[in-house]
Amino acid sequence: MTTPYQLYYWDGLQGRGEFVRLALEEAGAPYVDVARHKGGMPKLKASLDGDKVDHPSFAPPALLAGDMLIGQTTNILMFLGAKHGLAPRSQQGRLWANQLQLTIADIVAEAHDTHHPVSTNLYYEDQKKEAKARARDFREQRIPKFLDYFEGVIQRNRARGGYAVGARLSYVDLSLFQLIEGLRYAFPKTMARLEPSCPGLIALRDKVAARPNIAAYLNSKRRIPFNESGIFRRYPELDG
Amino acid sequence: MTTPYQLYYWDGLQGRGEFVRLALEEAGAPYVDVARHKGGMPKLKASLDGDKVDHPSFAPPALLAGDMLIGQTTNILMFLGAKHGLAPRSQQGRLWANQLQLTIADIVAEAHDTHHPVSTNLYYEDQKKEAKARARDFREQRIPKFLDYFEGVIQRNRARGGYAVGARLSYVDLSLFQLIEGLRYAFPKTMARLEPSCPGLIALRDKVAARPNIAAYLNSKRRIPFNESGIFRRYPELDG
Repeated sequence: MTTPYQLYYWDGLQGRGEFVRLALEEAGAPYVDVARHKGGMPKLKASLDGDKVDHPSFAPPALLAGDMLIGQTTNILMFLGAKHGLAPRSQQGRLWANQLQLTIADIVAEAHDTHHPVSTNLYYEDQKKEAKARARDFREQRIPKFLDYFEGVIQRNRARGGYAVGARLSYVDLSLFQLIEGLRYAFPKTMARLEPSCPGLIALRDKVAARPNIAAYLNSKRRIPFNESGIFRRYPELDG
Repeated sequence: MTTPYQLYYWDGLQGRGEFVRLALEEAGAPYVDVARHKGGMPKLKASLDGDKVDHPSFAPPALLAGDMLIGQTTNILMFLGAKHGLAPRSQQGRLWANQLQLTIADIVAEAHDTHHPVSTNLYYEDQKKEAKARARDFREQRIPKFLDYFEGVIQRNRARGGYAVGARLSYVDLSLFQLIEGLRYAFPKTMARLEPSCPGLIALRDKVAARPNIAAYLNSKRRIPFNESGIFRRYPELDG
């Protein structure tokens, strides 16, 4: 591809766009993070539902690849994974990678709802009580269940290379890295308690962090720090 | 395929399994709804994380297709759609169908959370107050936004046949039918108010309901009625 990809995602937060950014960075694929440039926000808005858009997105992120506008994070990753060698080649392998990515999307949505259990249209401050109850369930029931699941996925992988899918790095591994980073940021006490029970996941996280393209990205200004506008937010009252 | 598919999903409710059932029924594909047969529940459990399972599912539904076990609803539908002519043939068309199915999955998850905003591990009765607040936001903000989006998708479809994707029926249309049915069941007053603003969607719902295989299925005992164990639940206090 000669034209760089155009990524449409909110400026100022990692959010769901970060899963896409990590895949683009690992692949070394040129891309423009549209909303982070001057005049980018109207372009982002138009990409979602402008009159000329055949395939509108319900919400960012969306990726323009040539003349294809692709929305929904797991869908974008499936496309990029196949294109840039970040996914298995077999149909069965691709379905499995997609299944895992969808399960990551599920816990990411639940992480979001810990601070917005009633409405995304209200401020966190207006749903703090409900957030406390939901976050408690997330910490005590859901995070352990998801981590245990992903740890089992790595342990069952017959290729035994420590990756989630097959014998090589895939976009699923990049997303698991981001999931661990996000959970560590938002729930540091909870994660300190749980990490000893998922050594395979943590080893995978470290392996991803050490990849040259990812390490360079994490040290660059392109990596927006975690903050309280994103999905993973550090509200100490929601941690255990 | 000579071996019938095996669908692993909870007995007694439509839930996410229903989106898969509708695709199987429209395709006229033989399948066994495992948990609805004697001894089915242990089989379902084993399909998720039994020792011999290479690709465990975090949660049902899962579909056994030959020797492939596929989890996550949108992933199963992507597989079935390609296999049974219920999806476009081009890569762009398939990505678009998957994007729409993922957006349907998003509103389905939000519909679930109207009655379980705090925890899936608690009864509805233990989170009624929070449910009321979340349902109000869902009725007033989210349902209209999603319906408006899907209506726009149908209107923008250049093939002009009234389908969501291209000129022919796809699994996305079957799922939009199920979404409308579910919302009508759970939020009858809200839907009576909103339906006039999405005539394309309602026409599509009617077109799907009239398809011979779907009509036969809806009239059969295989179609489990909506009930208060499923995702779409009729709790009058949550409707507008």
